[in-house]
Amino acid sequence: MKLCWFDNHRLGVVVGDRVHDVSEAMRVLPAPTYPAGPKGDALVAHLDAVRAEIDRLLPHAAALPVSQVKLLSPVQAPTKIIGVPVNYLKHVEEAEADRATFTDRYRGGIEEQGLFLKATSALVGPGEGVRVRFPERSTHHEMELGVVIGRPAANVTREDALSYVAGYCIALDMVVRGPEDRSLRKSIDSYAVCGPWLVTADEIPDPQALDLSLAVNGEPRQRSNTAHMIMDIATQIAWASSFYTLWPGDIIMTGTCEGVGPVLPGDRMHCEIDRIGAMDVPVTAA
Amino acid sequence: MKLCWFDNHRLGVVVGDRVHDVSEAMRVLPAPTYPAGPKGDALVAHLDAVRAEIDRLLPHAAALPVSQVKLLSPVQAPTKIIGVPVNYLKHVEEAEADRATFTDRYRGGIEEQGLFLKATSALVGPGEGVRVRFPERSTHHEMELGVVIGRPAANVTREDALSYVAGYCIALDMVVRGPEDRSLRKSIDSYAVCGPWLVTADEIPDPQALDLSLAVNGEPRQRSNTAHMIMDIATQIAWASSFYTLWPGDIIMTGTCEGVGPVLPGDRMHCEIDRIGAMDVPVTAA
Repeated sequence: MKLCWFDNHRLGVVVGDRVHDVSEAMRVLPAPTYPAGPKGDALVAHLDAVRAEIDRLLPHAAALPVSQVKLLSPVQAPTKIIGVPVNYLKHVEEAEADRATFTDRYRGGIEEQGLFLKATSALVGPGEGVRVRFPERSTHHEMELGVVIGRPAANVTREDALSYVAGYCIALDMVVRGPEDRSLRKSIDSYAVCGPWLVTADEIPDPQALDLSLAVNGEPRQRSNTAHMIMDIATQIAWASSFYTLWPGDIIMTGTCEGVGPVLPGDRMHCEIDRIGAMDVPVTAA
Repeated sequence: MKLCWFDNHRLGVVVGDRVHDVSEAMRVLPAPTYPAGPKGDALVAHLDAVRAEIDRLLPHAAALPVSQVKLLSPVQAPTKIIGVPVNYLKHVEEAEADRATFTDRYRGGIEEQGLFLKATSALVGPGEGVRVRFPERSTHHEMELGVVIGRPAANVTREDALSYVAGYCIALDMVVRGPEDRSLRKSIDSYAVCGPWLVTADEIPDPQALDLSLAVNGEPRQRSNTAHMIMDIATQIAWASSFYTLWPGDIIMTGTCEGVGPVLPGDRMHCEIDRIGAMDVPVTAA
C-alpha cells in the first residue's frame, strides 16, 4: 500500500496516478496524549489497524489525480531522522577526491564515522520543496532510500531487523557544505525531504535491489542501486538500536550514492526509486 | 517558578523542599492533535497560561517532600536537544591534552565545529538515572547549563535572543568516548539528563553569572561559572536559529566546563547550579 499525507494533512492512498482520500481511517488511532503516552508516529505505530480501516473505506473514497495535490512528508511525527554516512563506495571516492568541498572532518569507514542525526524540524514533503539557506555556500542533494521503522526497536539482531520496518520512501538528505558538524549542516529547515509516499514493506521484498536515480532540471546526476550499499539496511537497524531505541516513524536515510552536487533556487530535482515511484522537488530561496 | 514533572507524570511546583501537585493546571492546555498542530512541548508553549492557573491552584495543592518523589525531565516533549561543543577554554585544553580519549575528529573553534544534536529518545530526569551502555568503553559526564526555548525562534538576533528563553535547568550531556559522530555517542538512551526542574527565566536575570559544579560519589570533578563560556547563550540561540527553527521546549545544552571524566555503574553524580538547585543522578548498568 502507498500511503501519503497531502494538502491540508489529508491521509491518502495512491493507486495508479490517483490519490484516494482516506482521512476517515484516522479515527482508529488512539487519542493523542500529553505528556506521557506511546512514543513515535501514531499512524506508523498503528499501521495494521489503519490499513484494515482503509481497505474498508477505499471503494468509496473520493479520488484526485496525484499531480493535483501537494504531497507532504509521508511520516509526519518522527522522533528521529538518522543518517548513514559513506555507504556507497563511489560516493566515498568522490568525497576523497574533493576534500575542499567535502571537508576534512569526516574520514574513516562507516563504523568509525558512526550514524548521525538530522533535526526533525527539517522534515518536508516534495510538495513543500527545499529552501536554500546560506546562498553564498554550496547546498548539495544526496538522494537515498528512506527506511521507516514500524515498532520500538532496542538491541535487535541483524537477523530480525527488517521485521521492524514499516515501509520505504525516497529521501533527500540535503546538506550545506562546510566545516561544521553534519547534524547542523544537514538540519536546516526543509533539508530533509521524504516522499512521495510510504510504500509498506510487504510491497518491497528485497530493499537491497532497487535502482535509484536523481536528475536536476532533467540532467542525470545520481544513479545507483541499493545493492551497492557498503552496510546493508538490516545491519544499520541493528547497529542503531544498539545505541538508542528506535520508535515508530523514525526514519533512516540509508546513505547516498555518487553524483551528489549543488542545487540553486529555481532548480527542480526529479527522484526515482524502483517499486516506490517518482517525485519532483522544487528548490527555492529561503 | 520551579516547575517539574514527577512520579507518574504529575506536574509539580517546587517551593522550598516541597513539591506541590498542580497537575490540574494542565487543563488549560489545548488538546493534543495529530498529525498537524503546533510544534513543540505544549506546557512550555503555553507557560504563561499554565502559570496563571498554577497561581490559582497552589494555595490548595497537596505537597510532598521533594526527596520522596521521582523527578522526570522538566521538559517532556522537546523536538530537539542541541549541544554546544568546546565552549569553556579549560575544557578545550583538557581535550587537546588527551586526544586518545577525546578523539581527533573534532578540532577547531566552536563556530567551525558547529552545534550538534542529541536524540530526544535519550532524555531522562534525575530520578531515572543514567544507564551505562558499552561498559568496555568510557562513559563521561559533561555537566552544563540547560536552556529551554519558549517560543518559535527562526533567524532571531543576538539582541532579542534571550527573550525566547522559557527557563533553565541542569543538563548532563553524557557521552561514550570513541571515534563516532557525536550525535551517535551522545544519543544513547538515558544519556541526556535534565533536571531537577525548569526554573523560569524571570528568576535568573543573568544566566552568564552562575556557578556550576558536579561531584561523583562526593568527589569534586567539575566546577566553573557560566561567565567562562566562550560563546554566550544569546549568541548560541541566534546562531542555532540561523540554521533551523527552534520550537517551544527545544533544549540547548550550552557546553561543558573542565573536569569531565568517567562514571561507572553504582556511581552517584551530584550537580548544582546557582539559582536552579541541586540534583543527584544515579548511574546503573544498562
